[in-house]
Amino acid sequence: VPLTAATPASPAAVAQTSLDPADWNGFRDCAHQLLDAVLDHLQGAGAGPVWQPVSAALDQAMRRPLPLAPTATTEVARELAELVLPSGVGNTHPRFFGWVHGAGTPGGVLAELVAAAVNANVGGRDHGAVRIERQVLAWAKAIMGFPPQSSGLLVSGTSMGNLVAIQAARTAALGPMARAQGVAAALAQRFPGARGLTAYASEAVHACVLKGMGIAGLGSDSLRLLPVDASHRLCPERLEAAIHADRAAGFVPFLVVGTAGTVDIGATDDLAALARVAAQNKLWFHVDGAFGALAILSPAHRPRLAGIEAADSLAFDFHKWAHVPYDAGCVLIRDERCHRQSFAMAPNYLERAPRGTAAGAPWFCDYGPELSRSARAIKVWATLREQGLERIGAAIASNCELAQHLGRRLAAQPGFELLAPIPLNIVCFRHHPAGIAPDQLDPHNRELACDLQESGVAVVSTTRLRGQLALRAAIVNHRTTASDLDILVDALVRAARRRAAR
Amino acid sequence: VPLTAATPASPAAVAQTSLDPADWNGFRDCAHQLLDAVLDHLQGAGAGPVWQPVSAALDQAMRRPLPLAPTATTEVARELAELVLPSGVGNTHPRFFGWVHGAGTPGGVLAELVAAAVNANVGGRDHGAVRIERQVLAWAKAIMGFPPQSSGLLVSGTSMGNLVAIQAARTAALGPMARAQGVAAALAQRFPGARGLTAYASEAVHACVLKGMGIAGLGSDSLRLLPVDASHRLCPERLEAAIHADRAAGFVPFLVVGTAGTVDIGATDDLAALARVAAQNKLWFHVDGAFGALAILSPAHRPRLAGIEAADSLAFDFHKWAHVPYDAGCVLIRDERCHRQSFAMAPNYLERAPRGTAAGAPWFCDYGPELSRSARAIKVWATLREQGLERIGAAIASNCELAQHLGRRLAAQPGFELLAPIPLNIVCFRHHPAGIAPDQLDPHNRELACDLQESGVAVVSTTRLRGQLALRAAIVNHRTTASDLDILVDALVRAARRRAAR
Repeated sequence: VPLTAATPASPAAVAQTSLDPADWNGFRDCAHQLLDAVLDHLQGAGAGPVWQPVSAALDQAMRRPLPLAPTATTEVARELAELVLPSGVGNTHPRFFGWVHGAGTPGGVLAELVAAAVNANVGGRDHGAVRIERQVLAWAKAIMGFPPQSSGLLVSGTSMGNLVAIQAARTAALGPMARAQGVAAALAQRFPGARGLTAYASEAVHACVLKGMGIAGLGSDSLRLLPVDASHRLCPERLEAAIHADRAAGFVPFLVVGTAGTVDIGATDDLAALARVAAQNKLWFHVDGAFGALAILSPAHRPRLAGIEAADSLAFDFHKWAHVPYDAGCVLIRDERCHRQSFAMAPNYLERAPRGTAAGAPWFCDYGPELSRSARAIKVWATLREQGLERIGAAIASNCELAQHLGRRLAAQPGFELLAPIPLNIVCFRHHPAGIAPDQLDPHNRELACDLQESGVAVVSTTRLRGQLALRAAIVNHRTTASDLDILVDALVRAARRRAAR
Repeated sequence: VPLTAATPASPAAVAQTSLDPADWNGFRDCAHQLLDAVLDHLQGAGAGPVWQPVSAALDQAMRRPLPLAPTATTEVARELAELVLPSGVGNTHPRFFGWVHGAGTPGGVLAELVAAAVNANVGGRDHGAVRIERQVLAWAKAIMGFPPQSSGLLVSGTSMGNLVAIQAARTAALGPMARAQGVAAALAQRFPGARGLTAYASEAVHACVLKGMGIAGLGSDSLRLLPVDASHRLCPERLEAAIHADRAAGFVPFLVVGTAGTVDIGATDDLAALARVAAQNKLWFHVDGAFGALAILSPAHRPRLAGIEAADSLAFDFHKWAHVPYDAGCVLIRDERCHRQSFAMAPNYLERAPRGTAAGAPWFCDYGPELSRSARAIKVWATLREQGLERIGAAIASNCELAQHLGRRLAAQPGFELLAPIPLNIVCFRHHPAGIAPDQLDPHNRELACDLQESGVAVVSTTRLRGQLALRAAIVNHRTTASDLDILVDALVRAARRRAAR
């Protein structure tokens, strides 16, 4: 005889402290109206300005005193629709080229709706979102050529993914003792007299790798930033030389970081060559593939990523080129044990059981810094399944073709010049009017970027290449077409002329 | 003359790679149907089993090969509604007492819908979600008595909040040099000959603080776990003695961690006393207030938290007792400069501008490990505004009263015994049938927890108190009423009888 199903509490009792709607029908009407506003917004992704300063109404609404009393759901929903929905940074718009942000999909929004209702903490225990995350990780391994027995974790993004991988690499170098006794004691025991651990990447590596080294207590200076070649890639010979020099100087090299898609220009290191150097020197090989790794979904770009399957760890984002709504990153680690040893704990109040709610081991909290974890797997799963990997890959390939188109347009445009090769989807260029004083070039282009952004026509960002300020157009939106880039070029030409006329 | 608004790309061109719906009307119908399924699910939060094993259908659906081709949105939506929605761990149900998970609100779900459509990366730049996060942080400071010029960050949860605070405390102790040169070099320079940094907390501290110490390279062993008194609180005299002993032994004490709401039984340290000891010894005082800090919203419980406003840092969760959907944590840091020095970077591709899209400094990426950050502020803002702090506080107070009710019921129930005081909302107890062999008590209660979970009537978890396995009922749900607890007690009695009859 099973335990009998219990009768629910009386509605009167529930009303005492429940934060649920008192009027469910009214709430339902409000929800459907808000959904229509959301769908109108999504359907109009290409309408209106790409970006505009935060509205005075939103600015005012975000300076309120503490909300002690309740506010009607309809009023909160009105502000969500009228003030919040139009206040994005622009990344859903086909002429947002500012930073490497994904564009989202309407299907991803529906998946988030369901995830919010499920309201799961995916730190552990046995429930649906755990299974969904395992499915997504199995797919991620299959996409990237990692073995099924490797481990993985969905994270907020590649900053966190790199942080997790650096911890695992630290464990591989110093043993689990580093976690318990600290890096100084572990280093002294395992490598008596050594000056410290050292890691290697190209100077084009993303700053979050430096941040992760600092957080780990190893020091960001311990990441050696090696010069890149003309194609903005790390030279394997230089890497090998740096490793040997550090060893000779009393350091303990432990980690090589390759990049698939540098943030500046989209270059991808020769991953196979870096993997070989790392293996020969017994170093951990990590790949930061934040946006570039998913180019593997395009048959045309797949060869560029050869060697990624040989990495010890890999971090990349689903919220960039797979267009899953923010946030959705992923880290894969070849050595599951080393990964687990870097994070696992089993306090009494998190005891795992062979059956019941506390089953489902291993728990994801054993593979990263977080115990509270959102069910971001649901939107990743739904997006990959609804779109299919081939279509996502085709959108990626299209972005790269469009970058070539933009490069050709700018190269042919008097007064504009390209500042870097275009290996993927990023175009770095500047306006160089005849006769401009050399010290005015950078300020001129910086102002040009702001002018364009404030116009609402398109958004590009800036970076620096070999000391020169560059305008940077990153094409990451499945909605972008060639005509959007033609509009960008026309707007740049007009903005440059107006600045010149001052 | 402003730059003229551009004409949109032709629809035909957009269709080439767009991942948007080909049939918007069909998509809209599907979305409204899914919303109704979500609302039905939310409205029926108290119906059906609290938890059940993952369905065979979901299990099967999560073992698919790589999704190369697209799947119809209606089919994905069907699986979201039929397989995913009912697969939660149970925390939305009024008889989930297993772990300290919030219960969510329908309004929070609507806010997530909007946030997914906005699809913002809140790492930086000037847009709505940044302003909303600043509003939420201003409210958090006002709630907790932190000064307006202190800094803060929304994070995934208190595990991440504690990690951020430990980094800031490390910077306060060793200077920004620790980030660049590593903890070993920084310690050697600032405290020549010292054996290491040490931190202090009660043995009831959450394991994620140990994890954060390990990640920081300081070593989890460097967190001294001090015995608690009869009320499960850290004794200030013991703290002082431990600090002095470590100093005498050549260590550098740097951090005291107080807890507001221990995970085991809900005890809150004497925060004012710990703040005094920390100040007298010039140590950083951090409070882990994961769920307990928000008890400050209840006038009845507010006095227990006296001293929280004196902390150097505080981490707590909105997804627990404020019922914001996962994930939504918060960390506040009194010393903004120290916080920023622990994380800020300004690489070329993240240059901030005085106007345009790259305005909005300071950017949130300068205050934590993440550059990709979700717009979780939107759901926090909407929930606090819709519900109002007074109602949230009333629900918290009700949970604590219900814990007393459950305690009285269990104390009066033959064969059951309480194992700890009930200072807040957690009841630790066990079934102790007459004549049971002492070595059978723990296994008996462990099986009882599983029996109850599998029955679907209620979920409690387990922990260990003074070496004894305890059943643990954490009451964190605004939907829970006294009758839910009566049902729990009846179900426990029945399950215990059935086990005894075997």
